[in-house]
Amino acid sequence: MKLIRFGAFGAEKPGLQLEDGSRIDVSSIVEDYTPEFFAEGGLEKLAAADLSSCPAVAADVRLGAILKRPGKMVCIGLNFKDHAEEGGMAVPAEPVVFYKATSAIVGPNDDIVIPKGSEKTDWEVELAVVIGKRASYVSEADALDYVAGYALHNDYSERAYQLEKSGQWMLGKGCDTFAPLGPFMATADEIANPNSLKMWLKVNGVQKQNGTTENFIFNTQHVISYLSQYMTLEPGDIISTGTPAGVGLGFNPAQYIQPGDVIELGIEGLGESAQTAKAYQG
Amino acid sequence: MKLIRFGAFGAEKPGLQLEDGSRIDVSSIVEDYTPEFFAEGGLEKLAAADLSSCPAVAADVRLGAILKRPGKMVCIGLNFKDHAEEGGMAVPAEPVVFYKATSAIVGPNDDIVIPKGSEKTDWEVELAVVIGKRASYVSEADALDYVAGYALHNDYSERAYQLEKSGQWMLGKGCDTFAPLGPFMATADEIANPNSLKMWLKVNGVQKQNGTTENFIFNTQHVISYLSQYMTLEPGDIISTGTPAGVGLGFNPAQYIQPGDVIELGIEGLGESAQTAKAYQG
Repeated sequence: MKLIRFGAFGAEKPGLQLEDGSRIDVSSIVEDYTPEFFAEGGLEKLAAADLSSCPAVAADVRLGAILKRPGKMVCIGLNFKDHAEEGGMAVPAEPVVFYKATSAIVGPNDDIVIPKGSEKTDWEVELAVVIGKRASYVSEADALDYVAGYALHNDYSERAYQLEKSGQWMLGKGCDTFAPLGPFMATADEIANPNSLKMWLKVNGVQKQNGTTENFIFNTQHVISYLSQYMTLEPGDIISTGTPAGVGLGFNPAQYIQPGDVIELGIEGLGESAQTAKAYQG
Repeated sequence: MKLIRFGAFGAEKPGLQLEDGSRIDVSSIVEDYTPEFFAEGGLEKLAAADLSSCPAVAADVRLGAILKRPGKMVCIGLNFKDHAEEGGMAVPAEPVVFYKATSAIVGPNDDIVIPKGSEKTDWEVELAVVIGKRASYVSEADALDYVAGYALHNDYSERAYQLEKSGQWMLGKGCDTFAPLGPFMATADEIANPNSLKMWLKVNGVQKQNGTTENFIFNTQHVISYLSQYMTLEPGDIISTGTPAGVGLGFNPAQYIQPGDVIELGIEGLGESAQTAKAYQG
């Protein structure tokens, strides 16, 4: 299944995208895609439901983020060798873990707002993993059993905030609108191998990133198992698994997002999204 | 007012602690202390309510964390000069910001579980600030207007996970049970000056930390204003403002928590809590 959320920001309803690309409203069957939805068998309920009377969703409706209020959004940095190298950073011996503020989450095609005074807002196409059940001290062999699904994520990053401040990266990762998630969450059964998905990103039609998750340093099951040694991953939690080469920071000279820029991205099997950059309006 | 939550983990009800120390159940008036509670005028509703028919809460009931599912928990590192020095770290020029996984939040007197294989679990008494309304690009002068209240927090930290891994601190900050919050949230009107509160922590009856928020490098209003330049602080979000000297890492040799240890802590006007350390049981 492909789960979508649609409607105005903060008032989204749950829906499904069908095989033919059409979309239906399933709010008569489930309340919303919340952590509780995943914890309480919502996916199974949806799979078993009679969808024949679900109304269609207009094609031009706004899509929301794939989930409502995940408990946490954990990210892996420098998880592609080519990306670590372009940033002038050593290839890490263990996953580099940081969080992204969940208040940064927006719909897949919402505007990206360049923070006030920001000069170094950058893009990062990433595979996001949605956790389906509580994961604590799980093995790599079992790790994919804990996945509810996968989605496309643009891990926007303000490089000055991330790298030129006193400390930790998240200052440049959690700005409002910095986490467009979607267009849909594909349930785990739809993705045969999360470690073999092509991914790409364009800015104003020019290809910037062209990678594949085959080049993960730490693959999906490794990352889930690793994180679960340090914290319980809960239903609805999101893990973003890192970006390949081709971010703005990696160009010489560096390229950053300007108001009016259009950023398009996609991952094989997970659809496409597009964000238009806007200057902050106080 | 002093807001409490009580009952079994995951099934807490909202209550109040009265001036005489007794506690009442206010679940007939408000559903729970959630982000929505703060966003939708819950504090005002509670202040205006007739509490005369609210049932008493038994004195021996378990207390839960002060809030249900905050959107994010942002922490400030090295915010006391004496603590930065004991850790051998430079006094920062700007706040050092990191997140704590909200899945780490537990009740004030719940057991602290030492993670599997951990040898360096440490304590940190901290003043936690609860945000009452959306704060984006707020000034220092206005910052305290955005505070709903304050609470006691023990920012447990696994030093090997925090400092000896590939990267970011949060790996050692977000382990399950690493964020006991409470016993209560005092509403902002009860704390005349959050930057002048005595704070202390004992391990097995021996004083380890004895500080005051007068020694903040960046005070409460500075921290709120600073963070709001990088992300929107939302109702129910928690900011933990850093710890004074006297953590286990600062002793020579370092002192870390062992199973059976009892950690007691308190902040002036915000009550006391106590956690007993347990080994992880898989």
